[in-house]
This record gives sequence, C-alpha cells and structure tokens, in this order.
Amino acid sequence: MKSLYVKTIGDAGLKTLGTLELMNIPIPKPGEEEALIRIAYNGICGSDGHTLRGNLGPLTEYVKSILPMPVGHEFSGVIEEAGEVAAQMGLKVGDRVVANYARACGSCYYCRTGRENLCQHPINTMSGCSEYICCHMSQIHKIPDSLSLKAAAMTEPFTIAFHAVEMAQVKAGSRVAVFGGGGIGQMAAQLAKQCGASVVTLFEPVKEKRELAVRLGVDNAYDSIQEDVMEVTREVTDGLGYDSVIEASGSRGGATSALQILSPDGNVVYFSMYPTDFDLPLNLFTQCYQQQKHIHGMITSSLIWPRAIAVLPRIEVLPLIQKVYTLDEYQQAFDEHMTGAYAKVMIHCNQDLD
Amino acid sequence: MKSLYVKTIGDAGLKTLGTLELMNIPIPKPGEEEALIRIAYNGICGSDGHTLRGNLGPLTEYVKSILPMPVGHEFSGVIEEAGEVAAQMGLKVGDRVVANYARACGSCYYCRTGRENLCQHPINTMSGCSEYICCHMSQIHKIPDSLSLKAAAMTEPFTIAFHAVEMAQVKAGSRVAVFGGGGIGQMAAQLAKQCGASVVTLFEPVKEKRELAVRLGVDNAYDSIQEDVMEVTREVTDGLGYDSVIEASGSRGGATSALQILSPDGNVVYFSMYPTDFDLPLNLFTQCYQQQKHIHGMITSSLIWPRAIAVLPRIEVLPLIQKVYTLDEYQQAFDEHMTGAYAKVMIHCNQDLD
Amino acid sequence: MKSLYVKTIGDAGLKTLGTLELMNIPIPKPGEEEALIRIAYNGICGSDGHTLRGNLGPLTEYVKSILPMPVGHEFSGVIEEAGEVAAQMGLKVGDRVVANYARACGSCYYCRTGRENLCQHPINTMSGCSEYICCHMSQIHKIPDSLSLKAAAMTEPFTIAFHAVEMAQVKAGSRVAVFGGGGIGQMAAQLAKQCGASVVTLFEPVKEKRELAVRLGVDNAYDSIQEDVMEVTREVTDGLGYDSVIEASGSRGGATSALQILSPDGNVVYFSMYPTDFDLPLNLFTQCYQQQKHIHGMITSSLIWPRAIAVLPRIEVLPLIQKVYTLDEYQQAFDEHMTGAYAKVMIHCNQDLD
Amino acid sequence: MKSLYVKTIGDAGLKTLGTLELMNIPIPKPGEEEALIRIAYNGICGSDGHTLRGNLGPLTEYVKSILPMPVGHEFSGVIEEAGEVAAQMGLKVGDRVVANYARACGSCYYCRTGRENLCQHPINTMSGCSEYICCHMSQIHKIPDSLSLKAAAMTEPFTIAFHAVEMAQVKAGSRVAVFGGGGIGQMAAQLAKQCGASVVTLFEPVKEKRELAVRLGVDNAYDSIQEDVMEVTREVTDGLGYDSVIEASGSRGGATSALQILSPDGNVVYFSMYPTDFDLPLNLFTQCYQQQKHIHGMITSSLIWPRAIAVLPRIEVLPLIQKVYTLDEYQQAFDEHMTGAYAKVMIHCNQDLD
Repeated sequence: MKSLYVKTIGDAGLKTLGTLELMNIPIPKPGEEEALIRIAYNGICGSDGHTLRGNLGPLTEYVKSILPMPVGHEFSGVIEEAGEVAAQMGLKVGDRVVANYARACGSCYYCRTGRENLCQHPINTMSGCSEYICCHMSQIHKIPDSLSLKAAAMTEPFTIAFHAVEMAQVKAGSRVAVFGGGGIGQMAAQLAKQCGASVVTLFEPVKEKRELAVRLGVDNAYDSIQEDVMEVTREVTDGLGYDSVIEASGSRGGATSALQILSPDGNVVYFSMYPTDFDLPLNLFTQCYQQQKHIHGMITSSLIWPRAIAVLPRIEVLPLIQKVYTLDEYQQAFDEHMTGAYAKVMIHCNQDLD
Repeated sequence: MKSLYVKTIGDAGLKTLGTLELMNIPIPKPGEEEALIRIAYNGICGSDGHTLRGNLGPLTEYVKSILPMPVGHEFSGVIEEAGEVAAQMGLKVGDRVVANYARACGSCYYCRTGRENLCQHPINTMSGCSEYICCHMSQIHKIPDSLSLKAAAMTEPFTIAFHAVEMAQVKAGSRVAVFGGGGIGQMAAQLAKQCGASVVTLFEPVKEKRELAVRLGVDNAYDSIQEDVMEVTREVTDGLGYDSVIEASGSRGGATSALQILSPDGNVVYFSMYPTDFDLPLNLFTQCYQQQKHIHGMITSSLIWPRAIAVLPRIEVLPLIQKVYTLDEYQQAFDEHMTGAYAKVMIHCNQDLD
Repeated sequence: MKSLYVKTIGDAGLKTLGTLELMNIPIPKPGEEEALIRIAYNGICGSDGHTLRGNLGPLTEYVKSILPMPVGHEFSGVIEEAGEVAAQMGLKVGDRVVANYARACGSCYYCRTGRENLCQHPINTMSGCSEYICCHMSQIHKIPDSLSLKAAAMTEPFTIAFHAVEMAQVKAGSRVAVFGGGGIGQMAAQLAKQCGASVVTLFEPVKEKRELAVRLGVDNAYDSIQEDVMEVTREVTDGLGYDSVIEASGSRGGATSALQILSPDGNVVYFSMYPTDFDLPLNLFTQCYQQQKHIHGMITSSLIWPRAIAVLPRIEVLPLIQKVYTLDEYQQAFDEHMTGAYAKVMIHCNQDLD
Repeated sequence: MKSLYVKTIGDAGLKTLGTLELMNIPIPKPGEEEALIRIAYNGICGSDGHTLRGNLGPLTEYVKSILPMPVGHEFSGVIEEAGEVAAQMGLKVGDRVVANYARACGSCYYCRTGRENLCQHPINTMSGCSEYICCHMSQIHKIPDSLSLKAAAMTEPFTIAFHAVEMAQVKAGSRVAVFGGGGIGQMAAQLAKQCGASVVTLFEPVKEKRELAVRLGVDNAYDSIQEDVMEVTREVTDGLGYDSVIEASGSRGGATSALQILSPDGNVVYFSMYPTDFDLPLNLFTQCYQQQKHIHGMITSSLIWPRAIAVLPRIEVLPLIQKVYTLDEYQQAFDEHMTGAYAKVMIHCNQDLD
C-alpha cells in the first residue's frame, strides 16, 4: 500500500524545508485487540508543517533519530478487518470510524489520574496519509450517520478545540475571544457559540478567514494587527474584558494580546507550539494580584472524544476544508498547506470512500 | 396607581379559587438606595395559580396571614426615579431594566456562602402587576438594547431555567431531556441546546407545546403519557440514557420518569412545587448503588442574573408569550393562565412601554 | 497453590449460608502485560458476606452460574514475576504492591469518558484469598515505604471511602456526618477530618465502633438507634444541618436519617448494597424544592487510586484490622466477619510477608 | 477614642519611611444596619508596611490623596452596640466577632456574579488600630467559643490563605509547596495539610520560620536560597513535581521557582503585591504547551468567611503571633513588624479583652 513519510526535516535557522516520500509498504495485519482501517481522509496539521520546517524546539533531535517518519494523524475511514477482542468490543467490518492517533498506556501515573494527554508511555499511530492503518480498539470511535467521512477527518483537531473551550471555562453568557482563524480557531469559535457564549469575537489578520468565521456564526471578527485590540475589547464587552480567551494563532502578538484583553477572573488558554525562545511577560502585580487572571497551558485532550464526536455534527466543518488532494498529489497538498492561506488542506486517501 | 392584589386564596380540598382585586394605591417613593420603576410587562407564574388554588402546602397559613397580598414577580420596565446612592451605582432615569423580586439580606450564613436563593431574611418585592414598583439597587439589572421590554419580562423564569440547566450539568455533547413544555421547560430546552447538548428531547402531553418546542429548536418531542418513555429513550440515546434530565412538569408522572430515563452517572433536577404529599420512590440499590445517579433539588437561583441576561437575547421567548392583557383585564388574564394551555400569559402594565 | 472459592451461595429467604472451599490449583503464569503477585494480606469485604448469604438481588442468578467462584478483592503483596511489557512500565520483582481487582476495558463509552467504575466490559480479578494472583499492569500500584503490607490491604475499601468523601463534596469547613462504623465508614470519617471538615460525627449503634472512631479522631459519635438523630444534628451544627453526609451503614434507618440531617444545598452519598426491595421515600416538595438537597449514588471509584495511596499513610487503618487469620483458618475468618462485630477481618495469605 | 493613622507615606526610590500618628477622635455611632465593635486585637499586615515604604505602585497617588488614612484591617472584638436592623439579623451586645474590612456593594457586575473581591464600589473599613470601629452587619461574623479573640484576629489573613489553598486546588493526596513562611504562608501550609495533602513543603530562607513551620505540622522545610529547589522537588515528589504551589513570599525568586517546581497539569497561585516592575517570564512552549500548567492570580477572597471561621480553630495560629503591643506602643509594633523577622505582630487595642 502507499504510505507517506517525512524523509528529512528542514533547518529552522537556514529556513530550508524537509522532504516527503510516498513509499510502498505491506498492509499491516491487525492484532487481536486491533482493527485495520481503510483510510478515507487525512487532514494536514500545523504541526506537520513545523516538522518540515524543523521548528520542533527540544524535539528536533528525537525526530531526526526516527526518520523516515510516517505522517498523518487526523484521519477517518472504514474498518476492513477487526481482531477477535476488538470484535467483542463491538467493532465490525464496515464500521465508519475515526481514531485517536495516541494510544495511552493506561498504567502510568497520569493515565491513572485521568490525564491521558500527559501519558508517559504513549504509542502514537501517525501514518494517516496512507491507504490503511492499524489501531488499537481503545483508539477507535464509531461515528454517527449524520457525520460524513470527510467531516469526520476533522475530529482530532476538533478535540483540541473542544478541550480549549472547556479549559477556558466557556459557559452560558460568557464573552469569548479567539485568536487565529485556522482550523482549530474556527472550530473553537463555533463551539464557544454553541456552548452559550453571549458573544464570540475572532481576531485574525487574514480577511478571508475573518469573513469565513462570520459566515459560520461568529459574532464579529477583527484584524488583530491593524485594529486596536484593547479598544475593540472595550467596545464589544462594555469595558469588562473577555471572560474566556482562546489563543490559537501560535504567534507572539496573539499570545500577548490574549492576556491583555482577558477580564479580571477570566481564563486564557495557550495550546500552540509557540517559538521555543518566546517568554510571555506576565506582570504579577497587575495581571495576577490586581486582576486575578487565570492562565492555562494545554496539550491535546483527555477523555473527551465521545463527547466531541457527539457534538461535531453541529459544527460547520466542511467549509473549513478548502483544498483536497489525492495521495499521489501529496507534494501539492503540503505546498498549499504551508502557504497558511487555508483553514484545512486534506488528502483523500481512498477516493471511493466518501 | 393601579396595583393588583390577591384578596382571598382558594381551598385545594374543595377546589375553590381565590379572588383578585385591582386596588388604587399611592405611587411609592424610592429610598436613597432604591429606584422607582415604571412597569412595562409582568408575566403570570405557575406559582400565582398555586396561590389562587390554595395549593401552597406548608406555606398556606402564612400566606393567609398576609392577605391582601400584591401579585407579580416577573416584570420589566423603565426607571422613573433613582435614589442618590442608586444613581451613584449607575442607575438613571430612562434605563430599561428588569429586577429580581427577591432582595437577599447579604448578612446570613447562606448569603455569605454564595447561596442567596437560600437567604434566611429575604425581602420580596412582588407587586409586579402594577403601574410602578420600587426596588433596591441590588435587585435591578439593566438590559441590553437587543432585548425588548416584552422579552425581558421573561428574565425571572429564564433564570430558573438557566439554573436548572447548569445544575443538570449540561455541557457540550450532553444528551438532555426536559419534562414539561411550559415557559420554563421550553426555555430550559432551548438553553440546553444553546449549551452544546448533542440532542434535546421534550416530553410533554400537549401537542401544541411539543410542536412549538420543535419549531423553536428542540430536536424531538414526545407525548409523555401516550408514548413509552423508556423505549423513546433507548432509541434516542442509543441505549445510554439521558446525561441530564430537567423535570419542569411538576407532575408525579414526570418526576418518576425523569429518574428512570437518566443514564448512569447522570444528573436530574427537581425544582417544581410538587404535591406536598408526593414521595418519589428512590431505589438505592438500582438507582444509586448500581447506576450512580445524581438527584438535585433546586430553588430559584443565585448569582446568575447578569449571565442569564447576557444570553437571553439568543433564546426565542416572544413565541412563548401567547396572550397579553392590560392591567384592567387582569381577571381574563388569570383565567387564561389557569387553563394551562399557554406557555406564558402576560399583563401589559403600561401600554406606552413596548 | 491454595486458593479460596465460594462453592455454593445461601438462600436469603431461607436464611441459609453458602459454603467455601480451599482448593489447590496451579500458580498462574503472567502474560507479557501482567505480573504475578505473591499475596500478603486479603481483607474480607461486606459484599463477600452478601454472597454467602445470597443477598445479591438481581445478580443472584449470574453468580450461581459461575460457581465455584474465587473470593478476595482487597489484597496486597510482592511482585514475584513481571511480564516483559509490565517490566517496561516499571514493575519489577520485589516491588511491594496493591491492585485494583477490576481491570477496565479502556474501550467502552464509560472508560473513554473517565468513568472506569461504570465500564461495560470489566475483567475482575477476585482471587485475593490465595497464595498468588496474576494482574494486568494497569491494575497494579506500587505502595510507599511508609505503608505496611497489612495496612496496604485496606487500599481497595479506602478508595471507596475516598470516592464517597469527594462525592459528598467535603471541603475545608464542612460539617460532615457518617452513618456506619464499619471499615469504610471509619476510614471515610477519618478522611473527612483530614480534608478539612470542621466537625465529623459518626452515627453507629455499636458502642465499641463509636469508641474506636473517637479514639481515631472523629469529633463525636452517637448511637443512631437510641439517640434522636435530628436533635443531635441541631446541636452539633447550630441548626444548619450537615453539609455532607456519607451513608455507609447500608441500613434502611441509616439511609432515611442521612437524608433528613442533610443541610439545604448539602450532599448525601449512597454507595452500599441496600436491600433491593427498599425504596427511600424522597419528598420532592420539602427535600428538593424547598431545601435544594443533592443525592448521589456511587459505585466503587474511578481514576483515584494513586491519590488514595498517597494519602492512605495518614489514615489510622491498623486499629481497624481487628482479626487476622491464615488461609487455612478461612472458615473461622469468615465466621468472625459475619458476626458484624469487627471493622475488618483479614486473611494473612503468606505469613512471611509482613 | 484613640485611633492610629498613616500621616505620610515613604518614598520607595529614596527608601524613606512614612509616619504614623495616634489621633484622638470621637467614638463612631452605628447606623441601623451597623454595629459598634470594641476592638480586642488588630494584626499588622505586610501591606501596611508597603504603605509606609511607599511601595504601592499604581495606587501611590490615590493613597497620598486620602492622607491621613486610618490603619488596621485584621481585627477582632466584642459588640458594644447594635443598630436596629443589625440586631434583627442576630447581632447583639457582647457577641465576640471579627469583621471583613471590605463591604461589597452588592450591586455591581462582580458582586452579582459571586466575586465580591472584585467589587467595583467597595467601602473599606480600615481603622482596626483603634479602640472602636463601626461595621455594616454584612461585614460582621460571630466566632465560635473555641476561638480566642487573639486567634480570631488572624481571620482576615487566614481567609487569604484559605482562598489560596482552594485556588491551588489542594485536595486529598496532593503534593503541595508553599513559598514564604510569613503569617499567610504558614497558615496556608497548615491548611493544605488539613485538606488532605500527602506532603507539604515550605520554602523559606529564614531558619526560625522553617523550624516553626515544621513544629506546626509541615512535612519538611527548605532554604529557598541556599538549596537547589529543583533537586529538592525531584526528591520529595519522586520526580513528579508539586501538584499545587502557593507563592506567599512576594519575591521574584519565589515567584520564578514556584512555576518551575509545578508538575504538569498543576496549579500555582500568585496573590502577593509583587514589585510592579517585575514580569515573570512564562515560556509558552515548555510551561504551557508541553506541561499544561495552570497559573492563577488571586486577590483577597470572596464568600468564604463562614467556612474559614469554621476551620480556623483547627489551625495553630497563636504561635504565629510572636509580638504583641498596646496601642500606645504602635511605633515599636510597626518597627518590629518591618524587620520581617516575625510571622505576625499584633496590637492589643483594649487590654481587658482577651
């Protein structure tokens, strides 16, 4: 079968890019607790771009040591074969599914305290840009009929958005701001609205992304570079600030503004792969002592996939998938992704699955 | 000014009704921490009907002792005059406002632990079926431009719905059921949907109320008397049960079914004035030990008015206000209310305010 | 090796008892994700008595179908052999450990939403009254040096007490009552005190159990049958009621009183195997509408073992282990257990392990 | 009566100190919602020292504009006279009480959403270094018999410690670190232990304060300047880091270390008046993205006084009160306070009250 690999990574300093190769490898055979999935779609993630650019901070040497490395962790598909135990758990041939690329060990301190996203022995299944993939039954989730395989390939990034919205403590009546109109930012903004926010504002420099967000239900959207973000905040929130701020731009400017526009006792969430040399200056007197702000880090998600899948049909994800390519067109797909102009670029791995 | 009073209450046993009288009394003068409100609309509450029918359980003798008793606690209006301190807090003539009929003492154990709804020394301002009312500044909330005075008169019952949805722990992906399609049930169902519920089901015997709910956004609605509620639940929730159940019917049947259709580890909320001789049979082995269910009582709300007002413009409340009468037509208004056929009957106290 | 089995169960109606047999079976061989544990101690649980008496409600037929059934699910021991993957997770020969008898599937809806205690495909390892036992690595927890193997055998019942205290929302300043001075009740009372309760009261009819509780740190203890429980509550709580009530007696009287002495907005927890024909009468008007009480069911625990083990050294558990027997003395051990006079009876499975 | 005032404040740049004056003013007369308290003790707060040193950051000009300014906000006493409404709320002559110096308005957005500590119109009663003080009934709390008036004067700083422990999400089994062994740090460390922490570590450079903490129940204490804080953390927490960190030193070093020793998904709280020109560098990649840390600001407390008072008798506060002076000895009291050598210096305002 065809399976895409990162062959070399780039050099962030020299601004060179890494290379990809579509290899031909045997179809894997599922173990008794596994199932073989024939992949429909796989979305390209911002972190895939970080890998090609060599923007991996402390992870750089590790990634180099495991090259060639398969690529793709946002996928949907159909079960082709199920191991015996997996079948007993209810997985069967023909089931439409998505899978969490990370299989938590279940035995470490973090898994046993409900925080699988901090698992100390995870096994990652990251070969989603392939025709087939084998996953452990604990990674696989069936999807409802109301969700197409194409939309379902947005599940993994949606779980990040979902976790961010919950970490930011969005609830009925909250005033919410999101920085960054990429796939996760757009979904977070929509979900915040679905969770009862009284107002959701998107800050994003690209006009097309702002317009898309407003079309999909965000209350208002502003250019985070050209506009006075503090002034916008005062107007939109009657001087109170945003109760919840979700920083999905990964930029220094977004990160800095996100803290500033947060209301006293509000919650801001940071979950992007920021430049490793960037320190956000946090003034403890004004931001913490006087204003009682709450700043949350976040990495992926834990124990929320079933809920995220249940609510995903209510999110407008298809308009976010702006470019789709075949596996053979992988280079073009990654080139388009890396322009930054699109909310999501996808690979259609088996074109008969739709 | 005109002000409506309950003159006598009924006898629940004899099924006689109490009587109302529109009296002429002086316009009250606001103290320095108060404001005088010219009332636009006042909604009639189910509890007003309980009073007229004499269905007040342990409160019967107390109510008899304070007759004639003013009536009306769901009102909106415009500030006519503000005391000096109230003005310093930002209230000014012409402000469009709603008010919480209950003024918490701020000094008892419950107030000081954040539970104003259990205040031991509340002062209730319940003369909303009048031309004017005086309220303490702590009771008064300005409303946003996007909310009409008519819609705003739904604020008080909406805070009940809001509290119920939060107590039932509705969140993104929750499966939610609501029993009872009266005003509060309809608003709770809508709000649950706005809070990310993946599915919201209304159980209600009156066909018109079911149809109204579906028109306003509920996913499906079933006749709680004619249909097999357990069978509906199995189908709608894939056999899992409802994560959150809000019992807004006040009936024995609704109360009993609400517990049954609740999923393991789910949350059900009871906040109606149930018949005082009704005990719900709670099987501790099956419901508690085996299924880990959570059962919550609830009375009015605490510390949520600003958030409820922020989200109210997103709720479709105008279609719930099915009959409107003038103050002089009070008897007709109460007669219609007591048929039980309408989600909400309102009195338009000053017809120039709209 | 020696391993204890339930051979027959009793008949609850006829009040006959079931029988036990110490069998000789091969030592199990650990799989690659498992470890073999040489068992030190195993505590006898109230549910073991329920089995012998045939008090199993809807579970009766199932249990009959799997006889002879191994017995013992509260055990501690030392690792004798570790499979390859288990070793990679850090388990090694000689490690002092405890294990959760329940292995959650990790793949069902409840496991994936953080509620392993409601797992739909659990594999239970309940042969703790044996010389050896094999467990999956995800079930096994190392214990700190400060915890003896004897005390550690209280871990499983302590996780129940721990879950109950958290479910009852005990926090700094809470007034707490516990019904029932058996092992779990005693530990829950101690833990509540360790969690900042301002006062902890034990209600228990057996004088020796009350005295033991007071000796171990509970503030006061009353005879739940001879004393006026409501009057005690008024005095101890200044008329406010208990914020948190933990019902650990499993009796109708305890269950009924637990709800009555609960304060408005308080939390009561029911987690015992109550008589299956017992319905607690819950008055929705007074308990729910007027007093906003919260009633929680609970079964075992989820994702708290590491925290429970961390805090267990601070609990006085050795005084609760009032009788210890060898494996060969199993009949005597069960006879003593079933008198109900002791907080905990234990089997010392390998006497060189201490 | 005698009442102490700040007459001038110092200049932080020139390192000059402000001046105090004991003035003679009339005994205030309580309004109908107030009570007059004869003051027993008043503790000197770190913020009083900040005022004398002129270390007030953005508040400097405001404070200058209201000089002479009364001083003292940590006081206990006995009711001398109660206004009519205050008496109806249960306050009576002879009641032993403490009072919150801040009276929340009850009418602003923050008060109405349960966050009195962010009240936009607070009225502060800060003349605790006096013979008498008048407070609104909502500020006054009766104390239990088990609490002496001297210990009760620690209530206000204890509410800060209490809020910090809850904000840091200390629960059963938490590993907790506290920076700074002053009054609040010592009480926070004790309370964390009382709330079920499995281990509590104090980091403090002054040996006497470390020894005091260990004597009062902290598990271990280290010199935060001489020792390798990261190495201590690895040893004490088995490499996991502290789940909850409470920064009570107000120093740059403490603030920086507090973040470093926090475990992934842990919670750190900052609530001191840090140097206004100090920005904590927060690395978003490592601290937030990789480790999912949570950083909380905090100012005073909201709606927790009754619970704090209920638990205060379990805290060893008397050993923290290391120096006591009469009102006439105010200068000596402040001089001793400003050496920084003592956990708490107090003024005994009426020496017959003990």
